[in-house]
This record gives sequence, structure tokens and C-alpha cells, in this order.
Amino acid sequence: MQTQTLERMESDVRTYSRSFPVVFTKAQNARLTDETGREYIDFLAGAGTLNYGHNNPKIKQALVDYLANDGIVHGLDFWTAAKRDYLETLEEVIFKPRGLDYKVHFPGPTGTNAVEAAIRLARVAKGRHNIVTFTNGFHGVTMGALATTGNRKFREATGGVPTQGASFLPYDGYMGEATDTLDYFEKLLGDKSGGLDVPAGVIVETVQGEGGINVAGLDWLKRLEGICRAHDILLIVDDIQAGCGRTGKFFSFEHADVVPDIVTNSKSLSGFGLPFAHVLMRPELDKWKPGQYNGTFRGFNLAFTTAAATLRQYWSDDVFERDVQRKGRIVEERFQKIAAWLTDERGIEASERGRGLMRGIDVGSGAIADKITGQAFENGLIIETSGQDGEVVKCLCPLTIPDEDLIEALDILEASARQALS
Amino acid sequence: MQTQTLERMESDVRTYSRSFPVVFTKAQNARLTDETGREYIDFLAGAGTLNYGHNNPKIKQALVDYLANDGIVHGLDFWTAAKRDYLETLEEVIFKPRGLDYKVHFPGPTGTNAVEAAIRLARVAKGRHNIVTFTNGFHGVTMGALATTGNRKFREATGGVPTQGASFLPYDGYMGEATDTLDYFEKLLGDKSGGLDVPAGVIVETVQGEGGINVAGLDWLKRLEGICRAHDILLIVDDIQAGCGRTGKFFSFEHADVVPDIVTNSKSLSGFGLPFAHVLMRPELDKWKPGQYNGTFRGFNLAFTTAAATLRQYWSDDVFERDVQRKGRIVEERFQKIAAWLTDERGIEASERGRGLMRGIDVGSGAIADKITGQAFENGLIIETSGQDGEVVKCLCPLTIPDEDLIEALDILEASARQALS
Amino acid sequence: MQTQTLERMESDVRTYSRSFPVVFTKAQNARLTDETGREYIDFLAGAGTLNYGHNNPKIKQALVDYLANDGIVHGLDFWTAAKRDYLETLEEVIFKPRGLDYKVHFPGPTGTNAVEAAIRLARVAKGRHNIVTFTNGFHGVTMGALATTGNRKFREATGGVPTQGASFLPYDGYMGEATDTLDYFEKLLGDKSGGLDVPAGVIVETVQGEGGINVAGLDWLKRLEGICRAHDILLIVDDIQAGCGRTGKFFSFEHADVVPDIVTNSKSLSGFGLPFAHVLMRPELDKWKPGQYNGTFRGFNLAFTTAAATLRQYWSDDVFERDVQRKGRIVEERFQKIAAWLTDERGIEASERGRGLMRGIDVGSGAIADKITGQAFENGLIIETSGQDGEVVKCLCPLTIPDEDLIEALDILEASARQALS
Amino acid sequence: MQTQTLERMESDVRTYSRSFPVVFTKAQNARLTDETGREYIDFLAGAGTLNYGHNNPKIKQALVDYLANDGIVHGLDFWTAAKRDYLETLEEVIFKPRGLDYKVHFPGPTGTNAVEAAIRLARVAKGRHNIVTFTNGFHGVTMGALATTGNRKFREATGGVPTQGASFLPYDGYMGEATDTLDYFEKLLGDKSGGLDVPAGVIVETVQGEGGINVAGLDWLKRLEGICRAHDILLIVDDIQAGCGRTGKFFSFEHADVVPDIVTNSKSLSGFGLPFAHVLMRPELDKWKPGQYNGTFRGFNLAFTTAAATLRQYWSDDVFERDVQRKGRIVEERFQKIAAWLTDERGIEASERGRGLMRGIDVGSGAIADKITGQAFENGLIIETSGQDGEVVKCLCPLTIPDEDLIEALDILEASARQALS
Repeated sequence: MQTQTLERMESDVRTYSRSFPVVFTKAQNARLTDETGREYIDFLAGAGTLNYGHNNPKIKQALVDYLANDGIVHGLDFWTAAKRDYLETLEEVIFKPRGLDYKVHFPGPTGTNAVEAAIRLARVAKGRHNIVTFTNGFHGVTMGALATTGNRKFREATGGVPTQGASFLPYDGYMGEATDTLDYFEKLLGDKSGGLDVPAGVIVETVQGEGGINVAGLDWLKRLEGICRAHDILLIVDDIQAGCGRTGKFFSFEHADVVPDIVTNSKSLSGFGLPFAHVLMRPELDKWKPGQYNGTFRGFNLAFTTAAATLRQYWSDDVFERDVQRKGRIVEERFQKIAAWLTDERGIEASERGRGLMRGIDVGSGAIADKITGQAFENGLIIETSGQDGEVVKCLCPLTIPDEDLIEALDILEASARQALS
Repeated sequence: MQTQTLERMESDVRTYSRSFPVVFTKAQNARLTDETGREYIDFLAGAGTLNYGHNNPKIKQALVDYLANDGIVHGLDFWTAAKRDYLETLEEVIFKPRGLDYKVHFPGPTGTNAVEAAIRLARVAKGRHNIVTFTNGFHGVTMGALATTGNRKFREATGGVPTQGASFLPYDGYMGEATDTLDYFEKLLGDKSGGLDVPAGVIVETVQGEGGINVAGLDWLKRLEGICRAHDILLIVDDIQAGCGRTGKFFSFEHADVVPDIVTNSKSLSGFGLPFAHVLMRPELDKWKPGQYNGTFRGFNLAFTTAAATLRQYWSDDVFERDVQRKGRIVEERFQKIAAWLTDERGIEASERGRGLMRGIDVGSGAIADKITGQAFENGLIIETSGQDGEVVKCLCPLTIPDEDLIEALDILEASARQALS
Repeated sequence: MQTQTLERMESDVRTYSRSFPVVFTKAQNARLTDETGREYIDFLAGAGTLNYGHNNPKIKQALVDYLANDGIVHGLDFWTAAKRDYLETLEEVIFKPRGLDYKVHFPGPTGTNAVEAAIRLARVAKGRHNIVTFTNGFHGVTMGALATTGNRKFREATGGVPTQGASFLPYDGYMGEATDTLDYFEKLLGDKSGGLDVPAGVIVETVQGEGGINVAGLDWLKRLEGICRAHDILLIVDDIQAGCGRTGKFFSFEHADVVPDIVTNSKSLSGFGLPFAHVLMRPELDKWKPGQYNGTFRGFNLAFTTAAATLRQYWSDDVFERDVQRKGRIVEERFQKIAAWLTDERGIEASERGRGLMRGIDVGSGAIADKITGQAFENGLIIETSGQDGEVVKCLCPLTIPDEDLIEALDILEASARQALS
Repeated sequence: MQTQTLERMESDVRTYSRSFPVVFTKAQNARLTDETGREYIDFLAGAGTLNYGHNNPKIKQALVDYLANDGIVHGLDFWTAAKRDYLETLEEVIFKPRGLDYKVHFPGPTGTNAVEAAIRLARVAKGRHNIVTFTNGFHGVTMGALATTGNRKFREATGGVPTQGASFLPYDGYMGEATDTLDYFEKLLGDKSGGLDVPAGVIVETVQGEGGINVAGLDWLKRLEGICRAHDILLIVDDIQAGCGRTGKFFSFEHADVVPDIVTNSKSLSGFGLPFAHVLMRPELDKWKPGQYNGTFRGFNLAFTTAAATLRQYWSDDVFERDVQRKGRIVEERFQKIAAWLTDERGIEASERGRGLMRGIDVGSGAIADKITGQAFENGLIIETSGQDGEVVKCLCPLTIPDEDLIEALDILEASARQALS
């Protein structure tokens, strides 16, 4: 494989090509192929962008048909038939069955753009500057979103402009099982000199992806919603990684019976890996004036097309989400087994956690996790780590992965752990 | 045309659908078709995103072939054959003939993402927080980029978090012909109590698109480069709108014989309207550590594919750029004529300006400009305004527009001006 | 008493004249006299500025002598005999017996100036921007200091410029007795994505005055020092209110056997109510370049004169500090009695807390506290409240208060509580 | 003279003791005496704090009497007879004859405190965050004020927290005689994408002290007032250095027939070198809520006492201000002579400028200015420099300087210039 040009010309900022230093050429559902023809099972899936697999044929067909017909590809935020179809489908397939009523804002087609729009809207709507965010949260790296992202790697690379506009509070479980971290939030809200500027909104992931597959309890999420309502604070669920079915429901907050004021989606939203994002907001929160938050690619019609096809294909009934839940239990069980083996046989304090097909094994250190995932790559499995130290081996496989691939991948992972730690 | 769903469900932030309230369905090169079958000539071209026209068949073929072959669509920043091909083509077709040597950073696929990455890199590289930007500059609306964008509409909609990290200086011509605005910049740099924090970088558009087709003089740009060099300040050219051939050269700064330290590109970079962006940097400025600026869609392989096809198709020789220059002169001439008519026959102080196919007629007020463009839309021409008050009628037609469409569009515009101001 | 001019001409920002709407004319030690000749015992003492009483005759004599001799009153930061004498006395009387070695910075003569200098120095010394501060902390209201002050009244009156550069953490006891709040701090320091930018320094009051006489445990303070040392973070003790003997030691941190890297003093530092402040810093932290933090009144020689006289008079041996501790126990006992009465007889959950002569009764609500202090004023006692809701009745009497005045004041307070809540 | 303790114990931030490394012991009017008995004439006068000379006997008598009578020295913002007397005197002696109507806010007793209060009030009153300030302006170094101060020495010593909330514009004359810098301001105000956030207020010195005795034209100031009125922007005159008679009027803006919305005073306000400051505001701007901007030393009664005595002594008629103007002409004439000599005889491009007794000779470089002032110190004259490079030899002598001292000082300066540059 020729990699010299890639190594020479691409900025040192590149990262995944360091863990997986091969040149990929093709992909189908849960399998990637490199230039030498070697196949890999994909447990990374674009960090949650490929919930419906690589090159999903039904979605691809809609895309190819649209292209063949010279449909509008780019039209800023023009009205197009593709946009209309997407909105109608979103309403019919997603909103109505769930009793939701949201308006839709299409910002630039990336998660960080959606987060910037969401928190800015919350500020404008409430006339307050502060956003509460949580330890280990990840919400993007442009300056507005970065303020809500905990990772030092990004926070320390701003070149002398500290972020502003957000306050960090401990996520569920952060202070140990004995402490409900929302007690602290509630105390601060009621304290006139606690130092917490009354927030416009709270931004939260129901399961933290980059932060280490930290799973907020459903009661905790429901209480958080209640605190927000009681204090006139907007609840923003960042469902960019956990949404689009990843946890076994279309929106991850459905599990907790929570209705956010604002929702951000991206990653798997297009269904095909195309850049796409939107912000959902309760209609009365739509305080935007025309053009107040813009972006060149805010109406990417190919993504409207594939996204609508995806909703129709997978979300018109509950077959798909039940299947995701089923697969989630398979992964859960195997991860628990691997964790138990690590603990019992290797003395590595390990544990499984997750929701749906967003799952991880916390092995306690990035070094150990890297050994396992490095070995897995040798064995044909692409799997990454997350968490503050990269200590969590993470499963983000396509939700559409065939059972046989899923089992094979889990076998590889288990074997790799044994090899790596022998 | 059914627009109720669009009106009801899309956020009030929508903007172009207010000027052009029709539902578009198809497009080919410089022509858009709405749902009723009506055709429009496109002098907006995605605000400069469709330099190569809608659904350019040669580029589309490359895209369809890639899809047919199950090429990688999304792979975070994996190495792929498509990325490698793009980098090699960029080097061969663009860098080498121009004597340029840049490393390439693919941030999230939007202009604002590229600008955030560029200014952050400049800060990190120089260890200074300040970025000099110019009056009427537009560089994006995420919080980091917004600090460098002059438009109040965005700046006043941050919900109480003022932007930081940038200082505005007057663009070329801002203080009248008698004043070289760089005198002021140079004086401030030499003044220990002038209030200008020594900048890490200067970000500039050689022709300001959103700001009103303000054209920096080539001497001014060259002098700006010299000031930057003399004071160890990085010169960042934001070529997102003016680049990719819009001004008659691939990079707009080629006209001024300037070599920026950092360049941002997006909009027409993919050649097909796909979200795509990159930051070019002199190799020694690549101070990024792995993963320090990330984003889910930073390796959009469909865009690599179409971008490489575009470079090969249009930039392997100088035929295309000479053709753009030729068409630019056609527009220039007609715009001058219209401006003269406005001035002479209607007493509206009007003037033409621009470079290449980035041209405008300044008619002095947004109200007049809107009358003209509104009438033009009635007559089948999509054309927008820019400038601080929307006072500039702006031509951003596809560079590939057939001469007959170009002439027809100019005829429409001229007739529309007469109708609107009769 | 004529108050019309005062009411008309002074800004509505005035505050204490609302609680005590009389015109004062004279004062001696712990007694104030108003224009009608009525006397009040002073349990406020300039919010801790008059530790040595009003018009302390020995200190006044030094001041009058200095004036009589045409000593330098104002000389920016000139060297003067008065400054030299103060520094020598500080070293001999305070530093040497305590084994301390500090350099001294005289900023503008107010507490907030000292805090701004202290945190800025910490940032410069460590090359990091963040300062950790604590819930209910008060460190001043100029913008730099305000970032570390928890009170919403000030934080919400900045007119749209959010503070920056500080992170709030829970003070000792904030999360209940079961939680050591430093566990949270330590966890955040070790967490690469916890959202806490590694701080340059921690600023802390050992007893929070404005925050409600919250008393940090001595073990907590010692552990805080240890955490700072372990993570190369500077420990800044803001001893502006708790210092100068208020808690029974010259520096409040002596109780905890802690040696801060930086100390701020003001309020009672001059001994006579004159504006005065300094920052003490370990010598190796003196990273200031000449003139980098300036101010017109940074060398107020009258304050040097009275401050030196005060140190000689009160701090050459331990007689004074033992007397303060003795009086502290008198107040403690009586406050406990009052608190018990409130709880037992009035069903108001009340409790006593404090250290030395910095003591309060927490009566649970500002409304109740105001009733008590309002009645006390009627009865000739000036006493204020503090805490986030003004729920703490606070004793900050002169340390030099005669026993008979102290007993009388406590009798008044006790009687006032009974009257107010009858 | 013993200076070891001073050198060892005082922070390296000390500055004036570097230019004048002697220990001062006494002072009377315009003369300082060092420990060896040597006398110096004082052309620095506490950087404008000692307009009425050192130890002015009439003012001192008021102070000593007040102390003898056990008047309130410190009482937070209690109403006191001294405060009332000061306010009444201010109204009678200063406001009424000038037709002014202001409310008075006493912040902490330093200039930077007053500036922080002034700009924060402007922001709150207008609901906008931005403050326009000017090149070479100096308004203090606490973080809020620092944002409006141009000097890099301070701006670069914030330890990684950039200032925010202010925009710099060119002061009168900054861009050469041909350019009225207010054209630029006015253009920016009318430009919706010029990058200037519409300011709440403009803060300006009518003569810039630290900035190099830059004198705003009276027409320029009047036009600035007009622009502010036209755009609903508050005009804040920072009269901390130029006020209290320094320019030949009590307020420096009287020359221009301008009535600011907000005024800051400090430095010579107490008349005796005591820390003191106030903010004057049009009554309708008093948007403060009780206690929203506080400070321990905000009611320094000794300063009320001396300030009232000063107003009565010097400002009850126009004798004093005419005398200041007369002396100003003496200095002006001699400075012109020295400047002419430097230019003609030494080839140093030099010029005189100033207003009243705030005057300087610009000698073009700090090195030359230092030579002259260093030699002057040798010869018994204390005189400092200002300007961005310290290139202006500056006269800030007491306004009360006897003519013979004034002449002697000017003789020394002239001779020192000749010696230094021989």
C-alpha cells in the first residue's frame, strides 16, 4: 500500500490512520476492505455515523436515483422537493408516533455546527449566557461547542483563547454511587452565591460516547428534566452519537420518557455517512430571525434524500429497534464475559456498560485497552477506545450488522484480549 | 407547489426560500427547475459553491462510479484510496505548477470549520491569541470564526457571549481612496500602547463576497503580506468564496503574487456541491498533535472523489481559467453599462466592481437592490445581493455557464433593472 | 438629621445606609455616635476593616505625628522611610516568628486590586489561565476578581460581559457532611476530559465572610494544600477579611499549618481603616516585570505608618491573639445559646459557627436574620448579615472591643432576637 | 540611605524607585526631601495626584482637625457628616456654577475601580457589552478597565486571559493631520458588517496622560459628543488624570463645552494624596441596584474631608484656574523653547504639546527622554516620561507650585537637556 503521499501531505492532526494504518478501498455493511483485499469487521462505524452500515443498498439506490434525475444537490436553504419529503417523513415516521412537536433547523452539516446553533438558540431564547454541561461530555470542537466539551486535548489547543459560556457539573455517577450528582446542581441553582450563573440550558448526552460509554440512569435523566422545568432552563439532548437508533430507540431519550426542549442530531442522520445535521426545537423556542445562523451546506439535498429513505426503511415500525435491542443484549453478554475474564484471570478490574448497541468494556487503563484493540486489528476487527484515558473498549458496530459478523467480531475481540494479555 | 410543511416545520432561520419561494426539483449547469417546470438561470450558484455548475456530468460520473463500486463513503480520517488520489492530484495539478508547498488538514466539511481550524492553528503556532480581520469580512458563524466576521446580524445573536480573539481593521478602500488602510495597521503594530494585541495571524478575503464584492488592490495585498512577514504574523487567506477559480485563478491570491501561510478552501472545492473543506498550511506550521482538531465528517470520500475529478477536468491546463476571465469581462462590461444607466438615467449612484466572475453592481441601497433582484426572479433569474445593507447586486454564476445563458441572464438583469425602476 | 442631599446625590448603589439610616459623626473603638448623639455598639467594624477599633489612639498618634512632620503622603511607589519601616516591621514581627519568607507587592489599596494582582501573578507564573475558586467565595468585583466571586448580584450586573478565567468547586461542607468536596477536585484534576482546565492557582478563604461564615475544616485546608503541591498548582489564601487577627491568629491559615504560595491582605491591614492592601508571594513566584501591575495609590504612606504601628502594638507577642481567642469563645458560647433558643423555643433551625471573632448564627433565612438585626439596630447594636440569602447574623466586632461592650452587645442581640421573634 | 530591605522585600513590580533610587522622607508643596536631606522639585506630583502640592497646610489642617475630633474614618458606605458635607460642597462649588446635574457613586478609592464601575454602568444602562476606547488610552489595569487600556506591558501580562468588551479606535490625530479619525468611527457605526459591536459607551481622556500628553482637539471632542448623542451611546470622560484643574479647568471637558454622561475622577480628587475616586452619572443613568458594585473602602471619610476642604479653598471662584492657566503658558513657552533647541541644535525632531499644566515635550524616543530626565534627577528635578515608548518628557507639577520653583525647575530641565545631549 502506498502511504507516502498520505503521510507527507496530510496534517499531523490525522488520528485514526495511526491506529489503522492501511488504505481502505471498499466497504459493505459491517465490512471494510483494504487495498490488499483484506477484510475487517467494523466495530467503529464512523464513530456512530454508519448505523445502517456501509453502502446500504436500499439507501444507495435512493441516492443514485436522485443523482440520475439531476435532482438539486446543493441549494443553500432553498426549498426543494427533497427537503420537503424529508420533513414530511420525519413528521410522519418519527414525530407523530412519539407525540413530538418540533421545528427543524438545518445548520451546517456537522455535529459541532448543530451544537453551536442549539446552545446559541437557548441563550437567545432565555436571555442568559450560561450553558451547563457535564464532566466527560463531548459536543464538538468549534469554539462555542468546545466550551461544553470536557476533553483537555482540545481545550488546551485553543492558542490562548479560553472557552467561555459553559459550566461543568458532574455527570451521573461521577462522584460515586452514594452521591446523586443532581443534588449538587439543584443546590447550586438555589444558591445566590454559589458561582453558577443561572443557565439558559443544560446540554447532555444520555450515554456519553467519547467520554467513555458513561450511561446516565433513566431516573437521573428524568430528574434532570424536572429540574430544568422547575427552573425555566432548557434541556438540550445532544443525540448526535447516541441517537438514530444506537441505544435501541430512535432518540436515546425515549428510554427515560424525557422530552427535551432542543435536540441535536447528526452522524447517522443521513443513513449513508453523508454530512448532515439538524437541531430540533420546541416551536415556541424558534427565536431565530431569518439568516441569523447560516452556513453554505445547510441544505444538503443528497442527505435529505438518503435520510428520508432511511426513516422509511427502518423506522416505520418497531422491527428494527427490537432487533437492535436484541443485538445489544448479545454484545452486553459477551462484554460481561470478557470483563469477567479480565478481572478474574488477569486481575484487571474490568466492567461492561452501555445501552443498546452503544457498549463498552472499561479495562481501567488506556494502555491495556490499546493492547486489546491493537491485537483485534491484527485479527481483522476495527474497534476503538474512548474515555478520558482511552480506557474503554467500545462497540459502535453498524446496527445492521449480520448476526454472523457480530458473533465473529465478538469472537475476535475475546480472542484478541486473551492474546494481548497472555 | 406545496409549501405548507416547509413553512410550518422549518425554523424561521430559513432565508433564501424567502427571496425565492418556490420548490426546486432539478438543476443542470446554470439552470434550476422548479416543481411547476419553470426554469431559472442561476446567478447565485450556491453562493459560490457551484462553480462547475449543477450536476456537472463529468464529475457526477466519477461520483456514480465510486458509489457503484462500494467505495468508502465515510471513514472518519481513515486513509482511503480516494483521499490519496485527491492529495496526489492536488499536488500535481495545483501545488506544483504554482510552486506551492502546503500540508493539508481536512476539518469538518464546512467553511466555518476550516476557519476555526486555521485561526486556532495560527494561535498555537505563534503563541498569541489575537487575529486581525477586516471590516465587512465574513468567515463563518461558529463562535471562533464569528469573532472574525463583521456582520451584526450574527454578532448580536450570540445570546450574551461576546466573541473574542479578533481585532477589526479597515479593509482596503474603507477609509476612502486617499487613505491606505495598511498605514493604520502598520502604525498600530509599532505602537506599544495602541491597543492592538500583536496578532498571531491576519485573515483576509482578497475579494469580500458577503461583504459586498469589495476588491482588495493587488498592491494592498502584497503590502499586507510584507507587513505580516516583517512582524512574524501569519497571513491567512480565506479563499472559501473567492477561491476555486471564481476570480479567474484557482487561488484568488495568485493575482497578487502573494503566498499565504495558511489558506482555507470550501464551497466549490468538491466541484459538485458536496460538503468539503480543507486548510492548507506551510509544512513548518503543522503544529497539530494527533486528533487535536477533529470532526466526524472530516474525511468525506465522495467529496475527495469529485474534487479530484474536478481538478483533473478543469485545472490541468489554463484553458478554463482563461475562459473564466473572458466571461468575467463580459459581465464586467454589462454591469458597467447597467451601473451607468442607473446613474445617468435614474440618478442612482451606482458602480461596478469585482474580479473574474465575482462581480457586483453597488446600487447604494438594499431597497433598490432588492427591487432589481426581485424583478429578476420574476423574469427567471436567480440573483442575490450582498454588502452590509444588501446594496450590491451580485453575480456568482457557475463558471461553466454557457455563453448563451450568460448573455440571457445579463439581458434579464438589465431588463429587470429597467422594469423595477421605471 | 439631614439626609436629603445624601439621598438625592448618592447613587442608588448605596447599601449600608439603607440598613442603618442615620448620619454618623464620631466613633471610638467599638462605639459609633450619630448626629443626634446616640451611641451604637459596632459589630460590623467596617466589614472587618476595623479590627483595632475606631480611632485607636495609639495608631492615630503615629498618623498625626507623621502628618505633623510633613512625611510623604503620596509618592506612587517611591521608596520612603515609611515604606521601609513597614517592610522591616512586617518581616520582624510577622514573617520571622512564623518562619515565613514572602516578597511584598503593593497594588492599588483595595482588596479587589490585591486579588486581581494575585490571580494574574499565578497565571503568569504557571502559564495557565484557570483559577479554581469555591462556592460562596467573595474576592471582589472588578472583572478579574469577579470571576472568582460567587454572588449573583454582582455576576449578573456586568452588562453582558461574562466573567472568565475561573472555575467554581464546592467549598468544604457544601455537599453535606458525608462528602469531602476535595474528592471531587482531585478526581477532576486526574480526569483528562472532566472539563476542568488545569488551574494555575486555587483561591480560598479559610473562613468565608460574605459567603456566610462558612468555616473550612483544618484538615480540609491541609489536604487542599497537599493537592496543590501534588499538581503544581499555587495555593492563594485570600485573607482580606479573615486575616489580621480576626480568627485569633494573624493569618487565618496558621490554624491549619498551611503555607500559601500567595496571600492577599487588605481591610484591617492598615490598622486604622485606611485603604491599604498587599499581596505576599513566595520569592520565586515574583515574575512581575517592572510596572506590569500598577496603580496610583499603591504606596499610601499614611497606611504604611499606621500599619507598622499596629504590628508593633499588637503583634510583638501573643497577648493580643490569646485575647481575641478568649473573646471568640465568649461570642461562641452566647451565639450557641441564642441559636439553641431559636431552635428550641421558636422552631427556627439555627446554629452557630465561626473561628475566633469571625462568628455567625445561621438562622436559615434572610427574612428572620433581618428581623433580628433590624431590632438590634433599634436597640443600639450595629450588626449585619451575610450568606447567600443573608441568613447568617454575623459578628465582626473590633478585636479590641472592651469586655463590657462585648457583653452589652451580646445582651442586646439576645434581647433583640427575643423581641423580633416574639 | 538603607535600601537593602526595600530591594529585597518589595516585588520586582516596583518601578518609580528605579528612576529615583533614593528614600524620601518629607515633602512640602512642590518639594521632596530625601533621607540625606537633599531637596528635589517635583514635576511628577504623584502622576497628577498632588495637584495641590504635598502636605498642603490648609487641607492638612482639615484632616488633623477631623482626626482630633474622632470623626468616622472608615464606615463602608454609611452616611456620615463628612460625606454629606462633601456632596453638598461638590454640588455648590462645582456642579451648580457649571450647570451640571450628576449623581455620585463612590466605588473603591482608585481610578481603575471608578473606570470599572463606569463602563459596567454604561453596559447595564444600554444593554450592550461593547465600550469604544482609543489608541494610547490608559484607564487602569484591573481586568475590566484593562480592556480599555492600550498598553501592551499590561495587556500581555494577564496570564492567558485576553481582555474583552472593548474596541480600540484611533484617537484624535492618530492617523495624521489629514484624517479626522471620527470619520472612521462614524462609518463603522453606520456599517452593519463593519465588525464594531454597537457600543454602550465611549471612554475618552481629553488629554491622554500615560499615552503621551496627546491632546484631543476641542472640535473633535465636541464632534465625539455629537456622534454619541446621535447613536444613543454614552460618553464617558475619564478625567482621572486630566481633571481636578490639571488642564486649567476643574473638569478637562469644560474647554470643549462637552457634557459627558458619565465622568470618572480620582488622583487629585482628595486634594491631599489620599485614595479617593468617584463616578458621576446623569441621574437617569443610575441603574444600579443597592450594593451591585461594592468595595470595602468606598466611603473613605478622611478623603471626603480633605476633598471638601480643597473644593472650598480652590474652586469657590476662578482665581485658581486662571493661575493654573497662567503657569501653563509659562511651561508651554519654555517647553517650546527647549523643543526648538533640540530640533535646531541637536537635530532631534521635538515638539511641545499639552493643555494647562499637563504638558510634554515629545523628543521622539524613550532613550533620549530618559537621558534628559535622568540628568534632571541628578540636578534635583523629579520628572518622568510618558508615551508608548516613553518618548515624552512630561510636566505634571503641582498646580500650586510657587513661581520661583516653577522657574527653577524649568531652568534645571533646560540645563539638563543641554548636559544630557552635549
